[in-house]
Amino acid sequence: MSPNSSKPLREVIRPTTVIDAPRLSSRLGVDLTIVTETFQHTGSFKLRAAYNVASHIPQELIITASSGNFGQAMACACQLLAKSCIIVMPDTSARVKIEAVREYGGAVDLIDIRAQSRKARVGELSRQHPEAYVAGAFDDPLVIEGNASLGEEIAHLDCDFDVVVAPIGGGGLTSGLITGFRCAGKSVPVIAAEPLIGNDAARSFRAGHIIANEREPQTLADGARTLSVGEHNWPILKDGLTDIIAVTEQQIREAVRLLFSFANLKSEPTGALAVGAVLGNAERFHGQKACCVISGGNVDSDLFRELLG
Amino acid sequence: MSPNSSKPLREVIRPTTVIDAPRLSSRLGVDLTIVTETFQHTGSFKLRAAYNVASHIPQELIITASSGNFGQAMACACQLLAKSCIIVMPDTSARVKIEAVREYGGAVDLIDIRAQSRKARVGELSRQHPEAYVAGAFDDPLVIEGNASLGEEIAHLDCDFDVVVAPIGGGGLTSGLITGFRCAGKSVPVIAAEPLIGNDAARSFRAGHIIANEREPQTLADGARTLSVGEHNWPILKDGLTDIIAVTEQQIREAVRLLFSFANLKSEPTGALAVGAVLGNAERFHGQKACCVISGGNVDSDLFRELLG
Repeated sequence: MSPNSSKPLREVIRPTTVIDAPRLSSRLGVDLTIVTETFQHTGSFKLRAAYNVASHIPQELIITASSGNFGQAMACACQLLAKSCIIVMPDTSARVKIEAVREYGGAVDLIDIRAQSRKARVGELSRQHPEAYVAGAFDDPLVIEGNASLGEEIAHLDCDFDVVVAPIGGGGLTSGLITGFRCAGKSVPVIAAEPLIGNDAARSFRAGHIIANEREPQTLADGARTLSVGEHNWPILKDGLTDIIAVTEQQIREAVRLLFSFANLKSEPTGALAVGAVLGNAERFHGQKACCVISGGNVDSDLFRELLG
Repeated sequence: MSPNSSKPLREVIRPTTVIDAPRLSSRLGVDLTIVTETFQHTGSFKLRAAYNVASHIPQELIITASSGNFGQAMACACQLLAKSCIIVMPDTSARVKIEAVREYGGAVDLIDIRAQSRKARVGELSRQHPEAYVAGAFDDPLVIEGNASLGEEIAHLDCDFDVVVAPIGGGGLTSGLITGFRCAGKSVPVIAAEPLIGNDAARSFRAGHIIANEREPQTLADGARTLSVGEHNWPILKDGLTDIIAVTEQQIREAVRLLFSFANLKSEPTGALAVGAVLGNAERFHGQKACCVISGGNVDSDLFRELLG
């Protein structure tokens, strides 16, 4: 991909990858279709959001805090658009994640999170660079619009899914899917899959208003280590989600293993949440035509080895 | 997939999966396109061959010896065509491979290979079932024709590759690719990637006639543990291949790791041979637009963990 500021999202994004997995289907007792973003540029769906943000704002410099997929995606988006970005990351971040951001030309700003929070550092940088745009990974209409492109792709597959299951952290992906289905004129039940030990979205959904975790949940699903869903995501989720299913850490591990063994798919723990939700609710999903969205595949080989073991 | 004897190959086969991997490209110093058959039904390109054989012969019973991908593919092909098969496998085969054949409805015939060779057992079964077709995994025009479908798919991609690199064992895949390119009217240099410790194809290519290994080479690339290329494959390979590159066991391991880390791809060791060949010949491939064919992704998690370590 070479820098080109005029390209629309659809020309930059790799169409999602659709996999039938009959052996995994029979194990789960569902008619399963896997929609995987593990081969999206930068290895996760986040490029959809990052590119949509970076291509729609006038600012030439973007600041964001992300030790994970959004940082990498934003660095790639800025490279494509010949813009600049500063990605704030804890100095304890895995070397491979820091390298990935740098390979896409992003400036990495390492902080000691015991001494300064990411939010504080982003504020500091934003005062130093008042011309910059501060980007969030989920709570932004441009993020939702970018992720809606995946919903539209799924809606245009020649499949009538009974249900679409996708991971939830801040709600950027699921609010995008709901929006994409609406744009495509399709009514498909969307169920969010959330780590049980960080079940703020499920509690919010039941209470009817946003409830936050007290601290970042230390789930294996590092893409879902959010305090709460976003203000922009919430109204879409509240009315658009069919349900939120809690997934245990053990089910996340088992889902990663099943995807590896019976679909030849490398998934990161967050990416496996939807399969974990189906795994833990066999009766509910039995016989249904279910689409599980695998959000990304970026996982260190050491952790992956441990998950397989 | 439901049984239907009338379906042509192209309607049964999953189109191959094409992945750009910019981070892997920059590491290898080539403009790399990955063409992966890891998501083909049964997890390898072998279904192309197996289905083409099973759908073109009048026999209702097929016997073959395979502890690997061809057995699983033949069981699946027979299930699709409502035919029967007996797959001869060593009783030391991994439980998951035996289970895979059985899940596709194949009859598994376990033998103690210290007491009886696979060939002898296939001969015995064929005398017991004179109505059966004895299928080989590579040395058969129907196998070559089936695998040619992958060559045609690659030829029809909108890419002008400088070179296509693919694994070689018995030569079924590479002779199929050459045939497919010819059918599509494309002239693309094809380079075969072979384990160094089983380099019969390279020695044959240099000598101008088939040379066999004395015994099955114990390479990590278990799909290339063949004694020699086939009689039907040889004339196509001799005239059609540009070269054969030897790949060390260390390069196979490194290729599996690189595909995992920089392309989010789970590959079996045989599947990683083409990337291993590029890895070991940086100067030769530098700056070229190279297509690496990943032949399959079926690898036990224990072995995969060890390869990643």
